[in-house]
Amino acid sequence: MSKKYVYMFTEGDGTMKELLGGKGANLSEMIHLGLPIPPGFVVSTEACTVYNKGGKVLPGEIKSQVDKAIAELEGVTGKKFGDTANPLLVSVRSGSRASMPGMMDTVLNLGLNDEATVGLANATGNPKFAYDSYRRFIMMFSDVVIGVSKHSFERAFDEFKEKKGAKTDLDLSADDLKEVVNIFKKIYKDDQGKDFPSDAKEQLYESIGAVFRSWDNPRAFDYRRRQNIPYEWGTAVNVQSMVFGNMGDTSGTGVLFTRNVSTGEKAIFGEYMINAQGEDVVAGVRTPSPFAELEKDMPKIYKEIVEVCDKLERHYKDVQDIEITFENEKLYILQTRNGLRTGAAALKIAVDLVDEGLITPKEAVMKVDPMHLDQLLHPMFDTAALKAAKVIGKALPASPGAACGKVYFSADDVKAACAKGEKCILVRLETSPEDIEGMASSEGVLTVRGGMTSHAAVVARGMGICCVSGCEEVKINEEAKTFELDGKTFKEGDYISLNGSTGEIFGEAIKTVESEISGDFAKFMAWADEFRILKVRTNADTPKDAAKAIEFGAEGIGLTRTEHMFFEEDRIIHLRSMILAETVEEREKALEKLIPYQESDFAGIYEAMQERPVTIRLLDPPLHEFMPHSEDEYAALSKLMDKPVSVIKDKANSLHEVNPMMGHRGCRLSVTYPEITRMQTKAIIQAAIKVKKAHGYNVVPEIMIPLTVDIKEFAFVKEVVETTAKAVIEASGVALDYLIGTMIEIPRACITSDAVAKEAEFFSFGTNDLTQMTYGISRDDAGKILTDYIENNIFEADPFARLDRTGVGELMKMSVAKGKATRPDIKLGICGEHGGDPYSIEFCHMLGLDYVSCSPFRVPIARLAAAQAAVTHNK
Amino acid sequence: MSKKYVYMFTEGDGTMKELLGGKGANLSEMIHLGLPIPPGFVVSTEACTVYNKGGKVLPGEIKSQVDKAIAELEGVTGKKFGDTANPLLVSVRSGSRASMPGMMDTVLNLGLNDEATVGLANATGNPKFAYDSYRRFIMMFSDVVIGVSKHSFERAFDEFKEKKGAKTDLDLSADDLKEVVNIFKKIYKDDQGKDFPSDAKEQLYESIGAVFRSWDNPRAFDYRRRQNIPYEWGTAVNVQSMVFGNMGDTSGTGVLFTRNVSTGEKAIFGEYMINAQGEDVVAGVRTPSPFAELEKDMPKIYKEIVEVCDKLERHYKDVQDIEITFENEKLYILQTRNGLRTGAAALKIAVDLVDEGLITPKEAVMKVDPMHLDQLLHPMFDTAALKAAKVIGKALPASPGAACGKVYFSADDVKAACAKGEKCILVRLETSPEDIEGMASSEGVLTVRGGMTSHAAVVARGMGICCVSGCEEVKINEEAKTFELDGKTFKEGDYISLNGSTGEIFGEAIKTVESEISGDFAKFMAWADEFRILKVRTNADTPKDAAKAIEFGAEGIGLTRTEHMFFEEDRIIHLRSMILAETVEEREKALEKLIPYQESDFAGIYEAMQERPVTIRLLDPPLHEFMPHSEDEYAALSKLMDKPVSVIKDKANSLHEVNPMMGHRGCRLSVTYPEITRMQTKAIIQAAIKVKKAHGYNVVPEIMIPLTVDIKEFAFVKEVVETTAKAVIEASGVALDYLIGTMIEIPRACITSDAVAKEAEFFSFGTNDLTQMTYGISRDDAGKILTDYIENNIFEADPFARLDRTGVGELMKMSVAKGKATRPDIKLGICGEHGGDPYSIEFCHMLGLDYVSCSPFRVPIARLAAAQAAVTHNK
Repeated sequence: MSKKYVYMFTEGDGTMKELLGGKGANLSEMIHLGLPIPPGFVVSTEACTVYNKGGKVLPGEIKSQVDKAIAELEGVTGKKFGDTANPLLVSVRSGSRASMPGMMDTVLNLGLNDEATVGLANATGNPKFAYDSYRRFIMMFSDVVIGVSKHSFERAFDEFKEKKGAKTDLDLSADDLKEVVNIFKKIYKDDQGKDFPSDAKEQLYESIGAVFRSWDNPRAFDYRRRQNIPYEWGTAVNVQSMVFGNMGDTSGTGVLFTRNVSTGEKAIFGEYMINAQGEDVVAGVRTPSPFAELEKDMPKIYKEIVEVCDKLERHYKDVQDIEITFENEKLYILQTRNGLRTGAAALKIAVDLVDEGLITPKEAVMKVDPMHLDQLLHPMFDTAALKAAKVIGKALPASPGAACGKVYFSADDVKAACAKGEKCILVRLETSPEDIEGMASSEGVLTVRGGMTSHAAVVARGMGICCVSGCEEVKINEEAKTFELDGKTFKEGDYISLNGSTGEIFGEAIKTVESEISGDFAKFMAWADEFRILKVRTNADTPKDAAKAIEFGAEGIGLTRTEHMFFEEDRIIHLRSMILAETVEEREKALEKLIPYQESDFAGIYEAMQERPVTIRLLDPPLHEFMPHSEDEYAALSKLMDKPVSVIKDKANSLHEVNPMMGHRGCRLSVTYPEITRMQTKAIIQAAIKVKKAHGYNVVPEIMIPLTVDIKEFAFVKEVVETTAKAVIEASGVALDYLIGTMIEIPRACITSDAVAKEAEFFSFGTNDLTQMTYGISRDDAGKILTDYIENNIFEADPFARLDRTGVGELMKMSVAKGKATRPDIKLGICGEHGGDPYSIEFCHMLGLDYVSCSPFRVPIARLAAAQAAVTHNK
Repeated sequence: MSKKYVYMFTEGDGTMKELLGGKGANLSEMIHLGLPIPPGFVVSTEACTVYNKGGKVLPGEIKSQVDKAIAELEGVTGKKFGDTANPLLVSVRSGSRASMPGMMDTVLNLGLNDEATVGLANATGNPKFAYDSYRRFIMMFSDVVIGVSKHSFERAFDEFKEKKGAKTDLDLSADDLKEVVNIFKKIYKDDQGKDFPSDAKEQLYESIGAVFRSWDNPRAFDYRRRQNIPYEWGTAVNVQSMVFGNMGDTSGTGVLFTRNVSTGEKAIFGEYMINAQGEDVVAGVRTPSPFAELEKDMPKIYKEIVEVCDKLERHYKDVQDIEITFENEKLYILQTRNGLRTGAAALKIAVDLVDEGLITPKEAVMKVDPMHLDQLLHPMFDTAALKAAKVIGKALPASPGAACGKVYFSADDVKAACAKGEKCILVRLETSPEDIEGMASSEGVLTVRGGMTSHAAVVARGMGICCVSGCEEVKINEEAKTFELDGKTFKEGDYISLNGSTGEIFGEAIKTVESEISGDFAKFMAWADEFRILKVRTNADTPKDAAKAIEFGAEGIGLTRTEHMFFEEDRIIHLRSMILAETVEEREKALEKLIPYQESDFAGIYEAMQERPVTIRLLDPPLHEFMPHSEDEYAALSKLMDKPVSVIKDKANSLHEVNPMMGHRGCRLSVTYPEITRMQTKAIIQAAIKVKKAHGYNVVPEIMIPLTVDIKEFAFVKEVVETTAKAVIEASGVALDYLIGTMIEIPRACITSDAVAKEAEFFSFGTNDLTQMTYGISRDDAGKILTDYIENNIFEADPFARLDRTGVGELMKMSVAKGKATRPDIKLGICGEHGGDPYSIEFCHMLGLDYVSCSPFRVPIARLAAAQAAVTHNK
């Protein structure tokens, strides 16, 4: 018997997402719930793999299973595929395991040809509807399946409407639409050199193949990469008998969320459009009506929908994103899935669902994407600045938050400007999947067309970027790269500001400030803290950062970079004179000047952290980074050091390295200049003693030696630190504990961790450097390489943003195992950028680290990610 | 019972080197052979560890064992330690497991004080001898044990001789020497603030401690580092009853080799000095007589020595380096050890010993240090240039080979000049252990004093550098940094040339050429080839290099760097225009121009190698390396590319990277510019087909993709190579096999070798880059770091010269295991610098690699090292 590739909806259920995709599984599930679902079937994700690996040909055995399913549909509906009297029409939709807004290839009304259209007109008594359906089908099929640009069709349709004096498609008559059909068929023939296919089966096979191929398109690759979805999952195809929202004034279509996915408010939220098909709402061709209005227009349908929403939410225990169609006042559910939501909404919904008794706190913790918390912590407009600003337009508040940036008119321009460090606002007529990368790079998006469920709105909410949509007053001139609003012309590069929570548009830059956090946040984070095992520390170089991080829930400092403290003007000159010293004596003299600064910095941090652990890293960067940039600075240094500028410049130049990242830095500086380490140790210990004396805090500094490659090297530096620390402690007469540990950021340190752990009391993975060395890719130079590699599907993600578990992770695993073998209670943490990335945090949990450390604003994200990792792996 | 730390010579034997050191074990062994050895005992290497780890104090239990051994010596000799009538005198010498020419701390005549000296004078009836011994002892003990500079003593002695009108020490009377003793004691007291120690036991304990401490001195560290001797081995101390070569004209001392260690000739070779102690010969204070003269002077002793030499050689099956003393015509052997020898001598001796039936070919293979073969392959003077050159001096041919370089007068100056890339000759009055590093950096050494067994001669032969010693006509002015010879003054930086095989000195630079190889060489290398398992390939970029390597026994090419071919003037401009192209079309046009060059290069190499395997690496370096350096070059490029210079310069500057070593290079170039890879593949395959057609050779190119980090990346580039290769082969109509493999030079490639081996048909370890990434140390910037690390005893060796088995080696091991797990027959090689280093080659053998690849001149070294590894590990 051949393998089963085709499943009727009635054969499936909600657990079969891997095989049927999310859409197919949910349609099957809803049938079992007794909801009104138009009958249909699914061609499985396994068929996708067969198709794409088999030279993109649909094998005979799949075709025949499809034929059998169509026959079954014909039996259920009493219609016949390609029939001239009562034709069966179907929709063809993709549906993969995970939601894929990047893949929008849908074909409606499939099964129409000249004869069947006549049959449809007769069967429904509605020739206008029949030809409207046919012209839609020709355009969709040509565009989506065959790849004839839809712009040719749209242009021809617009010209035709203009010729006929029609404002919208609704103003056209049946004959007009028949004429449009002929125009569309001619466009197809001119482009393809052959007639539009009239055989329904051929249309169907082609469409199924096209869905499978769409899994291979660059947009899909781009989305999967962002979402970490493996190529191997494949997509299923849903073939469903058509119901028609475009059958007249008692028909319509809508897209709904069971709660407000912007704010989390418990109220059905969405839009509908009378006499339209679903694509019209999503594409934003007419402006739809808010769902609430349906209660007045069609109270029966409205009530049915409310009941369906309640049923689905109780069943799925989450907010649902539902597509509906009503055909002559009969309601159909075409799709349901968990609704994408903003961070604020996600948090409120999770907390509400617990309060409503639908889910447990543990389930709630799993319902919020940690990255979404970022939105809650993002800046909002400064109140005073906002008061002074003038609103020049208002449209839909499509994705909340405040954004301010320079105007750009294409995704590419945004990406280019963003690469230069500019903050950008993308302004578009409407967005499409090609714009995804540009949107991701922008601060916010402003669109002329489209509603709250338009592409721009859905994607922006998913990404957590601000969006104002459907501002039709905006007149864009794409060629000139300008737009007009409120009588003013804005050029590329001009500043505007957007409030995605109110829909307001400002023709100027407005200062932004940090946002405030709701009560739900604390409640939710307390749940997260209950489940997580990983501690969360922060990377902080100042008392201010430290205080901020504590506010966000940080439990200690995982990394204080001592070098950042040196860049203030009154210090850098002493640091420079230290670096450029020619003798140990000169160097020590300059170091002596730096001690008070370092000591007071450390004391401030200890005070802010009270008794929380504080890890301080010894000087790390290559010394060349501190050299003067201007002649004035050289002159000042020359005066201080009492040496000619030329001598100082020569010495500064001699510090230049070919590959500074692999040069004289980290603990290598301590080996060459132990006096620097002595100075820093003195400051670290003296400050701790001072704070202990002043406040009684039991400060236990964790002194971290960077860039270790060998146990003997570590022991050498440790000896310098220990001797100094002991002397300072002895002289003070105050007892003080401290730890000496190391960054693990060089492959060799991982490989020899058993040896290193003999001396090191803690390890902190410096995964920035470790990733650089493991890949042999310099972060400073990675841009071009990573772009090429991600575009060519060689790397799934930027390994500097998302920890590479296969390579870097394997080294970490080795290091953890070897380190623990020598010192079972060794303290393990991570302080690279990855410490704030949920995917990486999950891996740290799996490795059994004690803590992650990240920037203050990432602390809540890390807390939640750590909780989710614990729930996922310690079930 | 307490541990045994002291062994009488009669208690030991030759197998106990670890415990007794080489010297002690050999003395014990010689006693069992019935040779005349002055009685004595050894304080073991274990005592050294106890001493150095125990705060450098000699524990009571060791002291009492020493006391017991002294009592035993007193019994055997009938003398008494510190006795005023017939005092027992001893020598104290270090003796570690391996020969340590860097440690020369020897004390003779220990046990003397004012009273004992009178006793010695009475017992021998020779007061001159007694006071000579006493003054020697005071100086040696003060210098070696206590650390009073010996120069004060030497200066005082020279002044005293001048005052007395004495030409040498022999011209002084007993009373004179007694006066010298008093002067020396005063120097000691002035320096130390107390009297010279008169208690014999105290002298002995102090001396034993001093030997142990000398294991900790920087010279010893330096030597151990070079020779890869672990610190933990420690040194033993040999305490031996004195015999006296300075007892008059029937006494003497000598240093002998059982064969000529310069040439390998079978004839006793060495020097002796009448009425002298051993130190006099080694230090070169008087010029000794060649051993052959002893036959006339003292035929009985001569005959005895010849017999001893024969006996020792037969026993040890190797050339012996023997120290003798004869006291009133009675011969004593004070030491024997395997003799250091030149490469040429090592080879000849090994072959001769086989011919004489003393050893097997397998044993012979183990007797030659692979690095010594380097000497045989070193350049000699160009015959024509030599004819034209004028000999300006002649002295002892202390270490063979030809050297030409600039004159420097101190080891530090040599090191500094050498660091700048200069070739240097070190010119010294005499050398001492402090000069070792400077000698190692120089091309050759010229000394004024000392014989064939002087420090300079012994060390230079060991290092394989050219040395001419004992040229007393040379007048050095150290302050002015000049020397005079043959009426001419040479300043620092002037060129001279040395012939270490003839002893000739030339006051000019003489061109050098490659040396010729003796018949013994082929015979010996054939033995090596018989035992080795590793294949030896070469790194060669030109047909000329390839031919040279075959001459040296290379079995294939492990690395052809395609980029080196581009630097010729007529090519580089096309390469540049390719790199600076703005479109794929421009780039392909430029690449088209390069194909004929690449193709003819490859064809030449294939022809030279015939059917031997040839591995060709695709373009590897960052493109910035190829950019123009001069305005002329930019102008030419501007003309060729028909673009303004400014545009070209901008583009060239944009290629600059912060860390080019971790930048856009290797197969990353192939991902961005697959057209480069297509061009190179075309050239590789077309050339192979051409040579196959022309000569019928079955050429099987091995195409090597550099810098792989991920299987998908490798597969991407492989696809480009394969598609191109298939097309070229198909078009040619000639069948051609080829392999596609990768460099393994990035840690991630090692970690993911199981995946990479799915696609790669061979791995070649690029240990230069792998070492860089594993350590996070850039080779370009390593100088300062490595110097500091080696000086601080953190690194034992430069990991770029000697493979780091612990870190880099562990990654290689992982890669081999994972690669073989996926593809059991995967071909494995190494093509980094380490491929020519014996210690690293041994590791490659242990890993089970198929081949090593090294520069042509290193091929014989690699062949021998591979054979030794096989013999050592496959016993």
